Amino acid sequence: MAAKKRRRLGLDLGFHLQCPCCYRPGVPFCENCDPESSAERLQGLRALMKAHHLDAYFVTSQDAHASEYVCSADERRSFLTGFSGSAGSALVTAEKALLWTDSRYFLQAEKQLAGTEWVLMRQLQPGVPEFSDWALEHLKGKCVGVDPRFISAETSEDWTSKWGSSVQLKEIGTNLVDAIWTTRPEDPCNAVQVHPLNLAGETIESKLKRLREAISAEGASVILLSALDQIAWLFNLRGSDIEYNPVFFAYAAVFQNTAILFLRCLDASDGLPDEVLGHLKGASVEVRPYKQFFTEIANLLKPEEKVFLEPSSSSLALMGLVRHDLRVTGISPVEKFKACKNSVEIEALKQACKRDSLALCELFASLEAKLSLSESEQVPITEVDVDEMMKDCRRRQPSYVADSFPTISSVGSNSAVVHYQPERDSCKRLLATEMYLIDTGGQYKDGTTDVTRTMHFGCPTEEQKRIYTRVLQGHIALASAVFPEGTPGLLLDAFARGPLWKDGLEYGHGTGHGIGAYLNVHEGPAQIGGGAVPGDKILCNERRRRIFLMPIQAGFFLSDEPGCYKDGEFGVRIESDILATPAETPYKMSTRRFLKFEYLTLVPMCRKLVDVSLLSVSEQQWIDSYHARVWEELRSSLHSEAQNWLWEATRPLKA
Amino acid sequence: MAAKKRRRLGLDLGFHLQCPCCYRPGVPFCENCDPESSAERLQGLRALMKAHHLDAYFVTSQDAHASEYVCSADERRSFLTGFSGSAGSALVTAEKALLWTDSRYFLQAEKQLAGTEWVLMRQLQPGVPEFSDWALEHLKGKCVGVDPRFISAETSEDWTSKWGSSVQLKEIGTNLVDAIWTTRPEDPCNAVQVHPLNLAGETIESKLKRLREAISAEGASVILLSALDQIAWLFNLRGSDIEYNPVFFAYAAVFQNTAILFLRCLDASDGLPDEVLGHLKGASVEVRPYKQFFTEIANLLKPEEKVFLEPSSSSLALMGLVRHDLRVTGISPVEKFKACKNSVEIEALKQACKRDSLALCELFASLEAKLSLSESEQVPITEVDVDEMMKDCRRRQPSYVADSFPTISSVGSNSAVVHYQPERDSCKRLLATEMYLIDTGGQYKDGTTDVTRTMHFGCPTEEQKRIYTRVLQGHIALASAVFPEGTPGLLLDAFARGPLWKDGLEYGHGTGHGIGAYLNVHEGPAQIGGGAVPGDKILCNERRRRIFLMPIQAGFFLSDEPGCYKDGEFGVRIESDILATPAETPYKMSTRRFLKFEYLTLVPMCRKLVDVSLLSVSEQQWIDSYHARVWEELRSSLHSEAQNWLWEATRPLKA
Repeated sequence: MAAKKRRRLGLDLGFHLQCPCCYRPGVPFCENCDPESSAERLQGLRALMKAHHLDAYFVTSQDAHASEYVCSADERRSFLTGFSGSAGSALVTAEKALLWTDSRYFLQAEKQLAGTEWVLMRQLQPGVPEFSDWALEHLKGKCVGVDPRFISAETSEDWTSKWGSSVQLKEIGTNLVDAIWTTRPEDPCNAVQVHPLNLAGETIESKLKRLREAISAEGASVILLSALDQIAWLFNLRGSDIEYNPVFFAYAAVFQNTAILFLRCLDASDGLPDEVLGHLKGASVEVRPYKQFFTEIANLLKPEEKVFLEPSSSSLALMGLVRHDLRVTGISPVEKFKACKNSVEIEALKQACKRDSLALCELFASLEAKLSLSESEQVPITEVDVDEMMKDCRRRQPSYVADSFPTISSVGSNSAVVHYQPERDSCKRLLATEMYLIDTGGQYKDGTTDVTRTMHFGCPTEEQKRIYTRVLQGHIALASAVFPEGTPGLLLDAFARGPLWKDGLEYGHGTGHGIGAYLNVHEGPAQIGGGAVPGDKILCNERRRRIFLMPIQAGFFLSDEPGCYKDGEFGVRIESDILATPAETPYKMSTRRFLKFEYLTLVPMCRKLVDVSLLSVSEQQWIDSYHARVWEELRSSLHSEAQNWLWEATRPLKA
Repeated sequence: MAAKKRRRLGLDLGFHLQCPCCYRPGVPFCENCDPESSAERLQGLRALMKAHHLDAYFVTSQDAHASEYVCSADERRSFLTGFSGSAGSALVTAEKALLWTDSRYFLQAEKQLAGTEWVLMRQLQPGVPEFSDWALEHLKGKCVGVDPRFISAETSEDWTSKWGSSVQLKEIGTNLVDAIWTTRPEDPCNAVQVHPLNLAGETIESKLKRLREAISAEGASVILLSALDQIAWLFNLRGSDIEYNPVFFAYAAVFQNTAILFLRCLDASDGLPDEVLGHLKGASVEVRPYKQFFTEIANLLKPEEKVFLEPSSSSLALMGLVRHDLRVTGISPVEKFKACKNSVEIEALKQACKRDSLALCELFASLEAKLSLSESEQVPITEVDVDEMMKDCRRRQPSYVADSFPTISSVGSNSAVVHYQPERDSCKRLLATEMYLIDTGGQYKDGTTDVTRTMHFGCPTEEQKRIYTRVLQGHIALASAVFPEGTPGLLLDAFARGPLWKDGLEYGHGTGHGIGAYLNVHEGPAQIGGGAVPGDKILCNERRRRIFLMPIQAGFFLSDEPGCYKDGEFGVRIESDILATPAETPYKMSTRRFLKFEYLTLVPMCRKLVDVSLLSVSEQQWIDSYHARVWEELRSSLHSEAQNWLWEATRPLKA
């Protein structure tokens, strides 16, 4: 797939001449971030705004399906502003050009906006209003244009309820950025593949039946689906329209007796392969071209029919298809079904996690071998090299499709940058004197993984060991928790943070997120903890609270990833994939059954980073028995170099 | 004080003739719960309803200040229904008489309503609607009367926003229950006492200054206060109008330049003692009679003046004094100030906790001595006897005023009833073969306490030891938690429940509540966890969530009281009072400081109930070092019997 590689912030750039956006050496700017072309784009956009009688125009970084990752054809905000970070929104008025983004991207945005008219609005910083508040102050009586396909119904509702009649939100059917983006890539419309029943574990008919019952129970007779992973799950199909995500562009409408799938791959071609057609026809699913969705759906809905819509994944345009009093809104039942993996998916996930673990063990064995060579024999290995070695290791595993997100491969101080992305020309070299953190995941036909290990190939300091051990204790505390089904993820977060808090340590990201079954690496609705947890603004928002308080249920497949970061020095994160599953307990003193986590990732912890003196007996036992299990399950599938490495890596802590 | 003793449910009633309400032996009903007088009351009420053109009349168990405990003159719902539990609401229509109460009181209500027209509505049970939902179904187009003084603004707003125009809520100035309650006791109007600066730690002037700043910051220039403990705290006064609570009936209005206290003790007498007058005049506080509050306040408020009101503690009548658009609502700043104990209060609380602990140690020493006598020498001791012994022990301590709530003194199966209250004629005898749980608290001039210990004076079973140990582990985990200031109480709840969950154990009550400084034993806004925590209805309510997510701050004085209850067998609860205080940590990796809990209660755990094999090394160290501290701090203040007991009780676990 030809999606443009998503550019992220590299640190340690030094002072040699290179583009601030793509790090191309020898040029001050590339064509994307050239201040002159930036000015031209703004000029073009303002002319169109005038023609549409708009005082302002708002550009999101979203695609029409509220996807977390977008394809290059949907990178409108990036094209307009020159800022290529994945999160951010732009507002243009006759006098101003403002870009809102969060703290992960401040440095990158400063570099990429330098020399242009764009002003950076640093989100959540003191004195910096959110866009909707800024608009209330500066756009009273004015009209803000927006493309209703690229803003969620939830967000636009928040705005309009805050604004009342003070600011007018105007939906503009023509996208004004597309109008000036003459070089916009083609919209991807790759073929779809069947996700077979021996991996999906449930037929489309069965899924549709459950879905129809669920929406009926909510008083609706139709559901319109927009979230790409929900559609892929429901119809047991997979695609390749968006990098890292095995999804395809589509909408779906599920009625009580029929279901219609609007596929973008039908926009360009006449039909589907027989296998896909048969797969869908067997379940009485009709297919139509994606481009006809908006025009046809209006005819398909009966008058007075109640329609279920998920405001967080539905665009304002989609929501607008249904009269206000006919909408039934909430978290999509598909989102909830998808989160609870069935027994076939679970068996498949276990196999995928095992193979992914083999790949990681092979990587670490290889790295350790290379770093243990004498100085003169060593070939330098950079962060990007490790990423490529990792991909090679995965490619040797059956059913590997692609990575599930861009690998974070980070040495020393770079490992303290939570969302670090190495770039070929600026990245660091792996050294036995520094910490190394790799956060990486694979898409396999039978499952999706997301694993982080922090390693040291030399002699770690006492401080590195202490912080690593505290993170590991938090990781183990969550992994070994037992709790009544339905406990909100927020509560479980305390287990992971507790051991760090005792030392005054903390981390500013969530502890766990849902993971798909050969689907997106981040999926709802499960979540364990949020950003910087305590009493934050995050908890003052009703929607955020709904996510944090989402009950954990059996079958949820989650990451367990506490961390700790010393700015400019090193970072530690330990992440494995865990499955919520019924627990056997001596008592059952609850109306709910008790759950525990099954630990699916099989990659050793870094023994030399563990300070055994800080561990309780049960923590030490947990690590030793985990390592014994890793050795037993992986040994026979590894070549001898990796097997030797694994033998050393999984020895008992006190051996 | 002549407040009627609040009658609660006794178990093990046997089959001999006794009143189902007060357990008076030899009579089938007392005059309170006689079915005939119940019918007469309903008849009288319905006649008045007709005169007021009401289709229904709603009677709460609240007083005009939303107090948790009410005085006997305010027990209107109890008088009307014959049901004497502390929580419940009654609705009377021409055909129906319904009583809503929660699961704590189902058995009691069944007995007390038997033979009457009253129908019990079991709250939160499947198929049982809350009153507001019941009204929507059964009172469409009808008119429900309520006394606006005895319903909170928050509750009535919930109803009317749910009802829209379907059901009409009509405020009736005359109380219809009072009109038929010819024997209603006098409203208490006891004298108030000065709470001296050497205990309060902050002058009225300083408190008023902070309060004025806080309401100004919210855009209000006046605050009307109704919560009795907030008023007592703000004006450094204490009273005795409500049993167990050192408060007095009053309203307060704080303006930018003046403050007016409307005291009920002025309704009956001409003036205040010189000491109180001087105390208030020094702070420029005016006093007026309580009965003039509603008529005077309307004249005192300037037109267009914004007024701060706390909807949870303000009655509908109070809220009605201020035009809707002039109200500024939220948690009262006084509630927040009061929760953070100052250094003088903290020192005083420590002393009160220590003396209360001495009293408990003396009780346990005495119980152990009495139970260790040979069978023939033993005088039977009942649950009520222990309560009286406890009071005697407290009375020997300086500054003791009263108990802070009715003692839960419970033997064997009674200890599994969370809100058990023993009655003289039906209570159990203390035996060395059974578990014994006492949950008791004292009001001292320098502080309020709330302590629970579960004991065994013989040979506990392995199961009793296991469950006790799990509860103790939860108790220790919370007591020794370190966390960033501002962490919501809900998160900390996981620490207390975690060790129980591992065994499949759970408890259906909160883990901690705020405690006053010589004030109410339950105070807001702090709370650690709620009812049955996971994913419950409790979390679906916006207001509940606000409480559960309330950030914990330095100076919060809280209970730590996990428990576990085997129905019909035994219960375990371990409760001590803890103070949130800044922690020294090796790192400070947060924008917030880190807090820990200082443990103020000094009463040993029951050594023979601890299964040491279940403890981690650090848990065992925690208990041993706590016991060593208890011994050191209390030994010199105990007489020799209690000292010997304490020596044994505080020996190292493995000694």
